[in-house]
Amino acid sequence: MAEFVVDDSLKINYHLDGESGPVILILNGIMMSTASWADFVPVYTENNYRVLRVDFRDQGLSDSYPEDYRIDIHVEDIIKLMDQLELEQVIPVGISYGGMVAMLMAIKYPERIKSMVLANTVSRVTPYLKAASQAWQEAADLKDGRKFFKLAMPFIYSDYFYKHNQEFLASREEILADVLDEKWLTRFNRLAESSYDFDIENQLAKIEMPVLLVAGERDILTPLEKMKEIADEIADSRLITINDAGHASCYEKMDEFNTVVLGHLALTAKNN
Amino acid sequence: MAEFVVDDSLKINYHLDGESGPVILILNGIMMSTASWADFVPVYTENNYRVLRVDFRDQGLSDSYPEDYRIDIHVEDIIKLMDQLELEQVIPVGISYGGMVAMLMAIKYPERIKSMVLANTVSRVTPYLKAASQAWQEAADLKDGRKFFKLAMPFIYSDYFYKHNQEFLASREEILADVLDEKWLTRFNRLAESSYDFDIENQLAKIEMPVLLVAGERDILTPLEKMKEIADEIADSRLITINDAGHASCYEKMDEFNTVVLGHLALTAKNN
Amino acid sequence: MAEFVVDDSLKINYHLDGESGPVILILNGIMMSTASWADFVPVYTENNYRVLRVDFRDQGLSDSYPEDYRIDIHVEDIIKLMDQLELEQVIPVGISYGGMVAMLMAIKYPERIKSMVLANTVSRVTPYLKAASQAWQEAADLKDGRKFFKLAMPFIYSDYFYKHNQEFLASREEILADVLDEKWLTRFNRLAESSYDFDIENQLAKIEMPVLLVAGERDILTPLEKMKEIADEIADSRLITINDAGHASCYEKMDEFNTVVLGHLALTAKNN
Amino acid sequence: MAEFVVDDSLKINYHLDGESGPVILILNGIMMSTASWADFVPVYTENNYRVLRVDFRDQGLSDSYPEDYRIDIHVEDIIKLMDQLELEQVIPVGISYGGMVAMLMAIKYPERIKSMVLANTVSRVTPYLKAASQAWQEAADLKDGRKFFKLAMPFIYSDYFYKHNQEFLASREEILADVLDEKWLTRFNRLAESSYDFDIENQLAKIEMPVLLVAGERDILTPLEKMKEIADEIADSRLITINDAGHASCYEKMDEFNTVVLGHLALTAKNN
Repeated sequence: MAEFVVDDSLKINYHLDGESGPVILILNGIMMSTASWADFVPVYTENNYRVLRVDFRDQGLSDSYPEDYRIDIHVEDIIKLMDQLELEQVIPVGISYGGMVAMLMAIKYPERIKSMVLANTVSRVTPYLKAASQAWQEAADLKDGRKFFKLAMPFIYSDYFYKHNQEFLASREEILADVLDEKWLTRFNRLAESSYDFDIENQLAKIEMPVLLVAGERDILTPLEKMKEIADEIADSRLITINDAGHASCYEKMDEFNTVVLGHLALTAKNN
Repeated sequence: MAEFVVDDSLKINYHLDGESGPVILILNGIMMSTASWADFVPVYTENNYRVLRVDFRDQGLSDSYPEDYRIDIHVEDIIKLMDQLELEQVIPVGISYGGMVAMLMAIKYPERIKSMVLANTVSRVTPYLKAASQAWQEAADLKDGRKFFKLAMPFIYSDYFYKHNQEFLASREEILADVLDEKWLTRFNRLAESSYDFDIENQLAKIEMPVLLVAGERDILTPLEKMKEIADEIADSRLITINDAGHASCYEKMDEFNTVVLGHLALTAKNN
Repeated sequence: MAEFVVDDSLKINYHLDGESGPVILILNGIMMSTASWADFVPVYTENNYRVLRVDFRDQGLSDSYPEDYRIDIHVEDIIKLMDQLELEQVIPVGISYGGMVAMLMAIKYPERIKSMVLANTVSRVTPYLKAASQAWQEAADLKDGRKFFKLAMPFIYSDYFYKHNQEFLASREEILADVLDEKWLTRFNRLAESSYDFDIENQLAKIEMPVLLVAGERDILTPLEKMKEIADEIADSRLITINDAGHASCYEKMDEFNTVVLGHLALTAKNN
Repeated sequence: MAEFVVDDSLKINYHLDGESGPVILILNGIMMSTASWADFVPVYTENNYRVLRVDFRDQGLSDSYPEDYRIDIHVEDIIKLMDQLELEQVIPVGISYGGMVAMLMAIKYPERIKSMVLANTVSRVTPYLKAASQAWQEAADLKDGRKFFKLAMPFIYSDYFYKHNQEFLASREEILADVLDEKWLTRFNRLAESSYDFDIENQLAKIEMPVLLVAGERDILTPLEKMKEIADEIADSRLITINDAGHASCYEKMDEFNTVVLGHLALTAKNN
């Protein structure tokens, strides 16, 4: 664990794992944190990649930022971190909200990105995604982690996952009942607000590096057909669907997720 | 509007519209009531059908029933109503929860049903449907109609509907903020509880009358693949999908819904 | 059976069944004829519709037309027939090639159409549909009905239908081995040629009458997504999918097909 | 290029490329040959894998085998080749017909397989797949490569591919018009016959090594839902769909295909 400072005093938490090799930059979904990736990191370091994880402002172990802000604020934080670590290029792997950050970064700082993976994300916040996010904000306002879990999770995990992982979900509810405390829920609400006007549909064509798009077959928040719209705009994109996965495809189908990411890295990260 | 009495004193609200012709029996979804069908009734009466609408116990203008009960309690109420109205046979059109009631009725009283329509329903409450229902119960416990609307609607209406009907949804929220009062939410919770152990998968094969199954292409609660399982079990069933509709297909795509129901009636209701 | 004459001497075969009521005009798919609808006609006459069936030039019992022609030639033939029969308006039900004729007619003679049904059709012949049609032409050139059947049918009927109707398909092959004689195959080839440059995508928005679009879930020639493109352009359109049906949805799922057509008629044909 | 001999004198053509690393065994689809993989081999050798390609009897540069045989005959040939090359274990990548061979090998010689990839294949030849294969046999009987191409290709490539790759398909037709000569078509017919009674549905549960299943979203011959049936039976399987690809997913979407295969190899091939 390590930190760096932005805006004079705001601390951003990050981890850089692995000895050598191209650097994968994990950009979290809105409910995730660097801790969410503990089981994934060794898969990549064993395959000779370095893994850079970061908590966004208002996320995980990073400081809070009780201001109004828009999602692109994170891009500048990431670039500062890359500069500090003297990383010229990374390979972002962005999930949902993190995928939006990755796309913004690819448009503004294309030279800092070798290739990227965009999973379960959209190029514009749809009315439905906004309605679901607002439902989560209502849920967060209850300041009760367990209630938040019950109200928000059915949007995230697929019906398939609910059928086959009831024990996991029950134990997860127990854990998160504590983790999702008042502070977490307050910070969550600010992150949610920051993305409501996100819309880069008209800028996607500027993205020129190789992009892997990963859809979940049963993702209702950022559905396959929206990811096809991204694929249509980015020239060097490849779209792959993880079957029976919902919006949390990386958790619901971890092996499948790692399969496509490792494959994309093998094709695009090492060929200097 | 009319009432009849069950259990000595519990009043059940019903409407019987139309002069003559076969009787369609509308069985409401859990959040609906006889009032929900105001715009549909003339479509059927003009085509020479009678329309019988009923509010279940704990629904609409029917009395409350503050006991533990299971969903099949409604079947007996319906049969009593049919007896009182001297209706030998009806054609149930059951939506979601109402579809479950229709199937139970078809299994226990097959001679009282000529044919039926089952829309957006399942033969077993799946873990996912139960999770969504429990989310609604959490939402109902807030005793705030507006919050309930915000938390529950994204499960009902499709992303397609959210995209194309934002004004309708906003006005709907205004209306329901008042309608979904504490009494409504309390009654809703009992209705929800009554279906959690619903499972008639093994009895479907007993259903012999013609059945039209209507799925919504984007229904996440009672998805197409679950309706295919019903279709596989009922010998004389026909499955049709309304495109771009979610769980509220009858509202989201009213013309399409009426198209398939009227067609089913033309094929199966009049040939005595 | 009856005939009328166009181009001085070319005889067009037609049937008009039913005593009274709105007139449904059946427009055949390219491999069909008036005889294909024998089992359908009573369903509609019993519901108080008249049914007008026509064999296009080069089809069924109509005369051959050994010239180069384009698909819109049939529109004028239909209008002449309607004039002769003193039918002011009809309700076309067009299948595939017949759906293309219906759309052309709706654009040129909107006042002659009350509403219409377009099943398993496209507004533009796609490269894939052309490739499949050219495969059929190669097959037709063999002048052997049985070989034609073996080579062409897998494009028409779905895998679902093959699984559940092997006996039917075998008996059908026996029958068609004779019917699809050299004359039939020669005429088929001309009909196929007549549609290759069909493209009315830019004219669809002119269609204002109510239109029911019927897709087959497993139709690979005129797939659901192409029918969605039609639905997006025609303002008063309703799109419904028949599950597990291929390109021959009217044959593969006859009850379902009649359900949606009868429903559309009930909603749109009688309200004068 | 190299050969080895089975059945005393029947020569089997193979290629082993790459210096070191785990050995991928490419098992061809029925219309493919070792030559089909020329562009793929460097992708894998550059990632430190060896690639073993083989032409089945009656395929590519291997000898003909003008007897009746069943598909499992190839398994013994492969094992003999592995023995001769002193390869204890390989990672089969089987396409369609080659996927069937891979499954047979996994059931009979599980110790010779480390993990495997099954793309666009089935565990049982369905009536539809058989009908399509029989259509190809009719086409092959014409002994004309160009006609065969026109008649068979629309089953293989998706409508999406036809839309976006018309020039490629036209040039391909020119090339194959010569390659698909009478000898090729005769051998093709025997290979097709050898798989008609293929059915290992009841044996799939015996497969215990990690298996990547690759489906094409628009594959009509070995569709996604059939591959889901395989996924349900093999415990350690992962199912991924390549969007907009048909039955020839490896050709239609080469980058996507290499992405998932390389990812599977990274996860399963190197962890000794």
